[in-house]
Amino acid sequence: MESFKVGIVGCGTVGGGVVELLLKNRKLIGKRIGKPIEIAFVADRDTEKVKALGVPEEKIFNDGLKALDVQCDAVVELIGGTGVAKRVIEEALKRKRHVITANKALLADYGEELFKLARENGVSLKFEASVGGGIPVIKALREGLVGNRVEAIYGIINGTANFILTEMSQKGVSFETALKEAQELGFAEADPTLDVEGFDAAHKIAILSSLAYCRWVKTENVFVKGIRELTPLDIEIAREEFGYSVKLLAIAKATDGELEVRVHPTMIPEENILSSVNGVFNACLIEGDFVGDTLYYGKGAGRRPTASAVVSDIVDVALGNTYDVPECLIEVREEFPLKPPNQFTSSFYLRFTAVDRPGVLAKIAEILGKEQISIKSALQKSLDFEGGVPIVMTTHPARKEQIDRAIAEIDRLDVIVKPTFICMIEEL
Amino acid sequence: MESFKVGIVGCGTVGGGVVELLLKNRKLIGKRIGKPIEIAFVADRDTEKVKALGVPEEKIFNDGLKALDVQCDAVVELIGGTGVAKRVIEEALKRKRHVITANKALLADYGEELFKLARENGVSLKFEASVGGGIPVIKALREGLVGNRVEAIYGIINGTANFILTEMSQKGVSFETALKEAQELGFAEADPTLDVEGFDAAHKIAILSSLAYCRWVKTENVFVKGIRELTPLDIEIAREEFGYSVKLLAIAKATDGELEVRVHPTMIPEENILSSVNGVFNACLIEGDFVGDTLYYGKGAGRRPTASAVVSDIVDVALGNTYDVPECLIEVREEFPLKPPNQFTSSFYLRFTAVDRPGVLAKIAEILGKEQISIKSALQKSLDFEGGVPIVMTTHPARKEQIDRAIAEIDRLDVIVKPTFICMIEEL
Repeated sequence: MESFKVGIVGCGTVGGGVVELLLKNRKLIGKRIGKPIEIAFVADRDTEKVKALGVPEEKIFNDGLKALDVQCDAVVELIGGTGVAKRVIEEALKRKRHVITANKALLADYGEELFKLARENGVSLKFEASVGGGIPVIKALREGLVGNRVEAIYGIINGTANFILTEMSQKGVSFETALKEAQELGFAEADPTLDVEGFDAAHKIAILSSLAYCRWVKTENVFVKGIRELTPLDIEIAREEFGYSVKLLAIAKATDGELEVRVHPTMIPEENILSSVNGVFNACLIEGDFVGDTLYYGKGAGRRPTASAVVSDIVDVALGNTYDVPECLIEVREEFPLKPPNQFTSSFYLRFTAVDRPGVLAKIAEILGKEQISIKSALQKSLDFEGGVPIVMTTHPARKEQIDRAIAEIDRLDVIVKPTFICMIEEL
Repeated sequence: MESFKVGIVGCGTVGGGVVELLLKNRKLIGKRIGKPIEIAFVADRDTEKVKALGVPEEKIFNDGLKALDVQCDAVVELIGGTGVAKRVIEEALKRKRHVITANKALLADYGEELFKLARENGVSLKFEASVGGGIPVIKALREGLVGNRVEAIYGIINGTANFILTEMSQKGVSFETALKEAQELGFAEADPTLDVEGFDAAHKIAILSSLAYCRWVKTENVFVKGIRELTPLDIEIAREEFGYSVKLLAIAKATDGELEVRVHPTMIPEENILSSVNGVFNACLIEGDFVGDTLYYGKGAGRRPTASAVVSDIVDVALGNTYDVPECLIEVREEFPLKPPNQFTSSFYLRFTAVDRPGVLAKIAEILGKEQISIKSALQKSLDFEGGVPIVMTTHPARKEQIDRAIAEIDRLDVIVKPTFICMIEEL
């Protein structure tokens, strides 16, 4: 029986995991799909590392583009970035090989042209590992829920940020302390910007929302706010006073015929299952018009979970499954306009830091009232916080532009000593 | 463009949902898969009901077998049971139509012959809706995790039982009270045996474990114990004293080269995400050797969620996806012997009901000791319960046969006034 031949370009953390998986579970996979799977080549600058995994020397290359001369059915790109990775993918597609990638940044920014190229060459470009690590969330969204109109996606899709928020919540430590711990444990990079500022989650929700809503959403279309400003005090007040947990949520939803895509710290009801997603785990809550709420949970990163997702794509192309090119993204361009961030409508949590003086609450309330923002609850904590006292309010649904205008005015008051902390609330 | 034609046999709750979905989201589905989907016929004894859904009269039949004379590509069987349903499926397969079913009882007991028949006729037999309602758990297990050796499956796959346990836990009510509420809300049948005794979950875990472990597991091979014996006191003690929640879990796992498949009330750590699965929601925790823990959550029953699953199968066959016949179940018969229930090894929760007299604890402990069962914790509650005082112990891992022998002896003591309540613990 003809075997299915896979070439792997980039043998770092994930690439190494894929090689390991294909070697360890080769028999099992062969049995499950009815034909053997074989590694055609592995390319990496560090050829010794590849050799150490047990790959025969004649299959090891130090140049990904040159390795493409070896005959194979599918190429797995795990270099990352948008430079060489893009060239390898383009070249592989032109040679009519199926391509599997975990490269979310590349897809979020160049997906449109790469999918077109795949289609022109009659091959697949698959990317299960680009969102949610080992969780088969792309498959669930595109295949499992294919009959549904997607109403909303709420994702905890950055494990680093979720680990930090879990530590802050469970131990009451500051963002900085939690970040340091994450770095020491290897859960955060030395430069954690991509993770804690929400850009990584933005890449991922761009991909998910493109699939769900049949239109290209680019990272630059995603409203992004990170978790740096969050304090343990806000997390505690949210939980103790309002029954909310705080998560960095990536959200895509259609409202009023427009699509809003955003990533920001979000307060959600503690009893919602998303609140139970802790540490480095990821989860996506997908709401469909028929299926209702569904959730997909697992490890969102790491060598072995991500390898599991890559291999599911390999098997899909080996079996000729045809979901890979999102037809509607290429042919049917349904116009689903993006909602401008200032039109986002949500309940808000507002924490003011004010001098402890009579009349402050009234002044704040007056300005909110002028903007037609309706206050749901208000509380003042008698404690010293950042040189003032914290005054917390939650609002009924308001447009972000109303809130932004009101807060700008409030923050100019001489009784306000620090910029106001704003957090959106999703009742889910 | 040629459309894909679907015939539906059985237009009750789920069948009606499928018709609704195909009518409402037809354009969307057509766009997603690149060709139109069309209803070829709908068969049900109650033709008026079908008409009311907006199906044209010429497509409505009152006899499922006769309706098969209408040309179509796939037949959806939603009659249920193992009588007419089986004949319709066999006839459809023989006529080389793909078949989609939600019929877990039929698959659990006749899957082997039906899959063979599908294969002989070169068509698919798909069954996403048979387990977990709208949750694409079959797809996740078979496709999303295809690269993994499945280490264990822990499923909350009966919504009725989970609703009852959630009510008992949150409101402290008895099984009978919670069952009555479930019946009033339409979440439980007048005869709730299948659900509360664990047989429905047994059908489903038989299907999941067959797929995961490449061997036929029949319902009769599943160890089953229902939730009738559980009391609010046990649920409270489990939570307050030990930090466990109680769920009716369907479990499949390979231990010592043997497969154990069982359904029973199980105590699990409260912080595990499965403990957050409440009410009629279902969830499956699947552990793979590479992916680690993953969880799939959603509505496990109901008209619209189940229709969503059926339609995902329809789309899969329309696109020619080939995972449908489990090759390994037909050709490769790897021997994975079933572990006999008396060899199950687990920690146990034991609640004795004893007369309040000195020396009782010592007597119980002596008998457990004689069976080499190691006690982890013990507590005696000074309250009157079913004519005695409750004495609760948890054990370190022990074989079920040890526990059964010890409890049989303990229950013969004249100081024991009620049969001892036994519950397995899974640390997950």
